[in-house]
Amino acid sequence: MPETAVPITLIEKPGEALLDVVGIGSPLVDVIARADESLLERLGLVKGSMELIDLEQAIAMYASMGSSIEVSGGSAANTVAGVAALGGAAGFIGKVAADMMGEVFTHDITASGVEFEAAIVPDADGGTGRCLVFVTDDAQRTMATHLGVANTFAPGDVDGSLLARTKITYLEGYLFDLPPAKEAMRQAIATTHEAEGSVALTLSDSFCVDRHRRDFLDLLTNDLDLLFANEDEIVALFNAGTLAKALDALEETGILGAVTLGAKGCMVVTPAGRLEIPAAPVAKVVDTNGAGDLFAAGFLYGMTNGLDPERSGQLAGICAAEVIGHLGARPQEDLRALAITAGILEH
Amino acid sequence: MPETAVPITLIEKPGEALLDVVGIGSPLVDVIARADESLLERLGLVKGSMELIDLEQAIAMYASMGSSIEVSGGSAANTVAGVAALGGAAGFIGKVAADMMGEVFTHDITASGVEFEAAIVPDADGGTGRCLVFVTDDAQRTMATHLGVANTFAPGDVDGSLLARTKITYLEGYLFDLPPAKEAMRQAIATTHEAEGSVALTLSDSFCVDRHRRDFLDLLTNDLDLLFANEDEIVALFNAGTLAKALDALEETGILGAVTLGAKGCMVVTPAGRLEIPAAPVAKVVDTNGAGDLFAAGFLYGMTNGLDPERSGQLAGICAAEVIGHLGARPQEDLRALAITAGILEH
Repeated sequence: MPETAVPITLIEKPGEALLDVVGIGSPLVDVIARADESLLERLGLVKGSMELIDLEQAIAMYASMGSSIEVSGGSAANTVAGVAALGGAAGFIGKVAADMMGEVFTHDITASGVEFEAAIVPDADGGTGRCLVFVTDDAQRTMATHLGVANTFAPGDVDGSLLARTKITYLEGYLFDLPPAKEAMRQAIATTHEAEGSVALTLSDSFCVDRHRRDFLDLLTNDLDLLFANEDEIVALFNAGTLAKALDALEETGILGAVTLGAKGCMVVTPAGRLEIPAAPVAKVVDTNGAGDLFAAGFLYGMTNGLDPERSGQLAGICAAEVIGHLGARPQEDLRALAITAGILEH
Repeated sequence: MPETAVPITLIEKPGEALLDVVGIGSPLVDVIARADESLLERLGLVKGSMELIDLEQAIAMYASMGSSIEVSGGSAANTVAGVAALGGAAGFIGKVAADMMGEVFTHDITASGVEFEAAIVPDADGGTGRCLVFVTDDAQRTMATHLGVANTFAPGDVDGSLLARTKITYLEGYLFDLPPAKEAMRQAIATTHEAEGSVALTLSDSFCVDRHRRDFLDLLTNDLDLLFANEDEIVALFNAGTLAKALDALEETGILGAVTLGAKGCMVVTPAGRLEIPAAPVAKVVDTNGAGDLFAAGFLYGMTNGLDPERSGQLAGICAAEVIGHLGARPQEDLRALAITAGILEH
């Protein structure tokens, strides 16, 4: 496919483009433990899904979890941390409380090299958001999220200075579960487009798609330049029944789409046709949490730094392979070094 | 070597022996990040060592650390968590504050299956202890520990009910840096021996040995049944110059000694002679933090559950190999399952 077939607004921005990607999402600290399936059943969790829980549920579930590790998380936050780890310029917008989890989240995203436009709420009800992540023996993750103050994310929490400087604004679908956040998203989209940036969305979770199909299809038609989804999510979005039909529907929209297919790699759908890109090798899959987030990181970095969609997809695969090799959804290896070794990026 | 040559007090305890191992040490939450050597230099840290820092230093060092993960730690706590992961009955004694780090530590050690006799201090100065762990590319770890309330661990914090029920009381050498804790150790040793249990010590760190050589030699002569050390520590203890001379000196004491030798495995020194035990294979060494702690876990579990010193040393190697394969000093895999696969333990 000729490189010129890529929608050009995605990779170039007139004027002073200081940031490659700005993510907007719920800042979370992940609390990760191994679990067996019987625990999921006992807690009433659907394997592979993300469920929202209140503080009381979070305390009760934590008490039944095994010994855990704590790692900064949050879908869009993981993605921009990955972009920064590749050497990209990234920013993040989200709402935390002035508590220890908020300090940990702020430290980690800042230490990753991401500019953090934090809405910090002192002594907030429920505190900074946390996500209980149950990892079963098959490396699948099941999540129960207590959003805490992120639950109150609203238009006033986005000041827009980062959005005016970004090539791509990246939104997590999860935010559409929160009505005031939905309004904040619409505002962020408008600000980004006014400043001639592009907008990307990840569908986040097939259950999330079921809850917001109409909103997402509306965005797809009117606002999006780039869509990320996995197989279940894209099928759910178009109520398509099969992946093939979902990909046809995606292609008809005319936007750029990247659909992850697990161990089979990914399918990149462009206005000029489709690219099937195999997955990067991984020695041992330990925890699939963050696979989609880091896939998006690699793809977004590539598309904003002169790589064509094929190489962007390969880079995405390398980033996803790193993060599923250990517990936690933030990269632990030097992603840029891995990409250089693989011949995708240069020194 | 005939099994009967093992000091029998180590593996049998008259009466109702409900616990295999009780650890006493500083409860810590590890804050782990990758770092390059230039950062260690800038922070004035000696690679491979553990240094005590105050709260102000901890805040400043955290600010210069990269994106981190938080995992419960503490040397003796890691060891008893490992014993429990193998299926052993374990307890832990230590001092935490009523804060989030204290909650995390308490959750994790309890969720591991360890009985925790916690001295909990409300709103304590400096809070629950934390250890900043800098992991360099060679998988070596350098630590800066803010003990927080663990710094005030004193005889009154040990109520002795766990010690009366244990086969082995396991002490971390680090505690000898704190004069009131030293007194608590002596009391714990007396309580253990009165209840006909055995006492084990880990030397913790060669710098720690340099600070407390006289105390440790005195313990060795009068109180210890089992000593854990690595090569640097055992050489430092006897001011021996070479490993060979240090092992001779250890053998002369007549106690059971287990000396770890990194990739070369370990040397177990018994009254009836020495056993050289090769290391267990490890796919990729990621972070050596916890290697000694989990070695001790395997050895202690073995010696309190009917394995001879050789198989105890092999089990120790399997536990150490698991923990150095990922970030963090607590086991992430099912240690008992690994030991069964290796043919060391039975279903």
